[in-house]
Amino acid sequence: MLFRDRIYAVRDLMRSHGWDAVVIPESQVAWLSGFTGEGEMVITQDHAGLWTDSRYFIQADRELAGTGVEMHKKLVADLVSLPQWIRKYFAETYRDIVITVDGQALSFSAVDAIREALLDGGREEGEDFHIVNAPDWIDAIWQDKPVAPHGPVMLLDTTYTGWTREQKLSWLRGQLDAKGCDAILLTALDEVAWMLNVRGSDVPFVPVVRSYLIVTRKEALWFVRKEGMPEDGLDALQEEGIEILDYDDVGLALAGGLSDRGILSLWFDPDTLNYDLYDALMTHSLADGALAGRSPVTLRKAVKNEVEIAGMKKAHLVDGLALEKFFYWLERTLEAGTDITEWEAAEKLAEIRRQISGYQGDSFLTISAYGPSAALPHYVTQELNSVRLAPEGLYLLDSGGQYLFGTTDCTRTLPLGPITDLEREDYTLVMKGHIALARAIFPKGTAGCQIDVLARNPLWQCKRNFGHGTGHGVGSFLHVHEGPQSIRQDFNKQALLPGMVVSDEPGIYREDRHGVRHENLLLCVEDGSNDFGTWLRFETLTLCHYDTTALAYELLNTDEKEWLNAYNERVYQTLSPHLGPEISAWLRDKTRAI
Amino acid sequence: MLFRDRIYAVRDLMRSHGWDAVVIPESQVAWLSGFTGEGEMVITQDHAGLWTDSRYFIQADRELAGTGVEMHKKLVADLVSLPQWIRKYFAETYRDIVITVDGQALSFSAVDAIREALLDGGREEGEDFHIVNAPDWIDAIWQDKPVAPHGPVMLLDTTYTGWTREQKLSWLRGQLDAKGCDAILLTALDEVAWMLNVRGSDVPFVPVVRSYLIVTRKEALWFVRKEGMPEDGLDALQEEGIEILDYDDVGLALAGGLSDRGILSLWFDPDTLNYDLYDALMTHSLADGALAGRSPVTLRKAVKNEVEIAGMKKAHLVDGLALEKFFYWLERTLEAGTDITEWEAAEKLAEIRRQISGYQGDSFLTISAYGPSAALPHYVTQELNSVRLAPEGLYLLDSGGQYLFGTTDCTRTLPLGPITDLEREDYTLVMKGHIALARAIFPKGTAGCQIDVLARNPLWQCKRNFGHGTGHGVGSFLHVHEGPQSIRQDFNKQALLPGMVVSDEPGIYREDRHGVRHENLLLCVEDGSNDFGTWLRFETLTLCHYDTTALAYELLNTDEKEWLNAYNERVYQTLSPHLGPEISAWLRDKTRAI
Repeated sequence: MLFRDRIYAVRDLMRSHGWDAVVIPESQVAWLSGFTGEGEMVITQDHAGLWTDSRYFIQADRELAGTGVEMHKKLVADLVSLPQWIRKYFAETYRDIVITVDGQALSFSAVDAIREALLDGGREEGEDFHIVNAPDWIDAIWQDKPVAPHGPVMLLDTTYTGWTREQKLSWLRGQLDAKGCDAILLTALDEVAWMLNVRGSDVPFVPVVRSYLIVTRKEALWFVRKEGMPEDGLDALQEEGIEILDYDDVGLALAGGLSDRGILSLWFDPDTLNYDLYDALMTHSLADGALAGRSPVTLRKAVKNEVEIAGMKKAHLVDGLALEKFFYWLERTLEAGTDITEWEAAEKLAEIRRQISGYQGDSFLTISAYGPSAALPHYVTQELNSVRLAPEGLYLLDSGGQYLFGTTDCTRTLPLGPITDLEREDYTLVMKGHIALARAIFPKGTAGCQIDVLARNPLWQCKRNFGHGTGHGVGSFLHVHEGPQSIRQDFNKQALLPGMVVSDEPGIYREDRHGVRHENLLLCVEDGSNDFGTWLRFETLTLCHYDTTALAYELLNTDEKEWLNAYNERVYQTLSPHLGPEISAWLRDKTRAI
Repeated sequence: MLFRDRIYAVRDLMRSHGWDAVVIPESQVAWLSGFTGEGEMVITQDHAGLWTDSRYFIQADRELAGTGVEMHKKLVADLVSLPQWIRKYFAETYRDIVITVDGQALSFSAVDAIREALLDGGREEGEDFHIVNAPDWIDAIWQDKPVAPHGPVMLLDTTYTGWTREQKLSWLRGQLDAKGCDAILLTALDEVAWMLNVRGSDVPFVPVVRSYLIVTRKEALWFVRKEGMPEDGLDALQEEGIEILDYDDVGLALAGGLSDRGILSLWFDPDTLNYDLYDALMTHSLADGALAGRSPVTLRKAVKNEVEIAGMKKAHLVDGLALEKFFYWLERTLEAGTDITEWEAAEKLAEIRRQISGYQGDSFLTISAYGPSAALPHYVTQELNSVRLAPEGLYLLDSGGQYLFGTTDCTRTLPLGPITDLEREDYTLVMKGHIALARAIFPKGTAGCQIDVLARNPLWQCKRNFGHGTGHGVGSFLHVHEGPQSIRQDFNKQALLPGMVVSDEPGIYREDRHGVRHENLLLCVEDGSNDFGTWLRFETLTLCHYDTTALAYELLNTDEKEWLNAYNERVYQTLSPHLGPEISAWLRDKTRAI
């Protein structure tokens, strides 16, 4: 009862400090509860709750068994959110309550939502409740908590980024002018990396450098650890007027040093600024000049320039070759009757990708899931007791690479032998949804949530659905999930713009049976204007054939068949010149028109 | 230059009072500018602007020609809204400015948006700007302004309403409990009518009684003119504890009389409360207890009960019979070579509807539009110089009836002879969109804006679109447009619920050429549950055949043809028993499967 003991230890600590509730950030949930998906927890003396969404319901059920932690299902109709739960839990507690947070691991927005809920509940701050910011309080019980890693840093030139640092800083200063403020604090690591054309390896799968960036009308202050920084790189940055300051000094700077530099107003993004730094900012003279607002870098970064687009296309070419080589190997190996596990398959794919020039690692943990494993959209492939692939049913592979020139994310679901009628139907319906979104044409100004249903409608017609979003933004050699656009049911008003990259990944999941997902990345492009306005459409970036043997042809209409045939033909024509004759012949066969 | 003179007169009045801008409510726009669509105006000394949406762009261009009034296009990407325009217009005016509104004709929300815009612009109220509430100021120049009509009132029994007044009041008091307030003020006329099971004729096409209703935990106060009220009706209401007070006393009651009755907190709907009453409420002691929030009646009224649903079905049966009789007459009359104008056609339809038992008038002004006329989605059919129908091209008829038992709204587009390829294509694409929405199946919790694209996607695929919503709610013998649900691109989060009625009316409009719209009313119903959740779908209420001769068959898929054939067959089977042999035979022919 490892996890149960850890939660008891938290409660002991809480009693000794007089804390009524602690909020556990995502980074500490797995250690405390054993749940390895995305979620946050609240612990009180008689309740330990985990808030997570439908992608993880099955997984949380399994991983939390025996821990005493209760799941609160996010994004379902009658959900009580974490802040509202805290409010309700203490509604009858007529004394001052103490809610403790690790301000370095929680955003200002997350903590503020709790504060707002308590205020709405009629409590007065400082009187009826206190929010205590205790960074790293969990260290007292989590003694071997790993130190945040810091790896080597590289500077990318414009053959990868298109824009120079100078161009980006000048653009950002234009944004400061428009907003009428002196400076901006960038706290999202991918935004800092994009702004400075730097990449690192401080976060698994995301090539960023743990750091902060303050840009004023004239200066740029980068708070970062100097270890791992290339000598010439440091000089180059400093020559361009970018001042390198110690990572740990950012709190001090926010707490008082800014006004010395003439910074009287500072723009910050409440969703990514951690609560600890917000505290530092607010408890000092700048409080009046702190302007909360979404960082303008979010949108700018999402709209790829021509160099980035060319890089993304190159990444999809080399990644597509790797995937086809892998699928060829998989088929031959299974045909030969050799045992393969989910883990070994993922390892083989990694080995193939490592041969690629410019490959920098994977863009997320490969999901190699056979049969019932694939029913968990975010299945974690196990090394120990890894599931063995058998020559029947469906195998789902969701993986992606980080390349110096771009980032990929691709899912294919393959039949390893005979499949059931239900598997065939699900495979085909998901394909219909996938194609409908890929074929979409829509007027300028359309938001992702306004076309999300295109991918769901073919499933809904047969009363099937999936509990995750249809599409997320993808960075350029950056985070494989990025905003501000998305294609989901949520009411995200951000319009899709030419140059944005989004995934198209509907699915169907059946617990203990199987899972199907088809995923390509799409590039949003302009498609002309007429009397009715300006039109946009998608260009598919991903290059990897779709298996046609698992399709129920009778469920496909002519448009869908034409799309599939054209796509598979394009995959063949583009990839085959780079593949040996044997794999090329195999791919020719796989991509024959239906 | 009638309208130009009226605007000059407004400016003279403004100068004499020292007003810098006046806001013209919708009810006064037509008299002042000649524009007969929906919109609001602002007049200053050097600008007269009309804010309207894309449904009226063509019409406004024509009607405003020569008046000096400039159109501001609402709902286009770079629009400056009316409040923002006022803010910008006066941005460089460094003195106290006076904005004058007719508080009886504008809602609190509308006026508050102007106030907020000026505050956001850095002006201080009472210092840098004043909002002057001058009810009926326009009477000084509009000397023959018609008096608001007040017609007979009727009380509906539960064979029409399902719920008694007592049940409704008891439900509403439950809402007061839940909100924790003493009383609610209902200001939307259709909500008052629904609550009290009364109908009137005070607003064209909307069977409501101009009145206000205050419901407390124990009392119900109806502020209404007693003329036109049935003697026994008054008694009946009073016996049920509904106090009848004079319409003109509501201001007085809000200004001070409420606390005498023990009402310390009052719920009001800022979108329908007029600014004048809001003023009365705020300048008195109740200010602290005034709780703004959407009225709960809005949603409750939109979800029809079983009696209302049965009534709506009956209304669609009798209205469908009227429409088929009309279309039969139209075809025979044109065949005979008899001249018919748009106006005469509309008159004929009205004549047929007047024969129907329970018919109470039309639910909106009939749009009888031939050829280019139909390119205006809200075309106003003219009596003088009415357009003559010719045996070619498309004729669009959008009309509806008010019946004691329900309300209808139906659009058919008919070929009167040969049509062009473009007309045929547009007719078919709109049909594809119409069918896609009618066939939708969707999970519980889905909002209209999340499925709106189903009706647009077939049009978008061919780069065509329409500038109005796809669907609106419809009342039960009440307003033909009602909320809170809608099926539009707007981010309206209201979920579609079983019992709601919505229209399904995509279109394509080509200036100076033609217009196509197909419209049925749909009832939202449950469609079972499975592992993926609870499912909803639509049942089509409207019963009137769709012409199949104008279709480009090759653009329709099997599902669409099946839907059309099944729909036309249902229309025939349901209506023919009630039609004479001649029309029945004609309808048999019109509804043959394609």
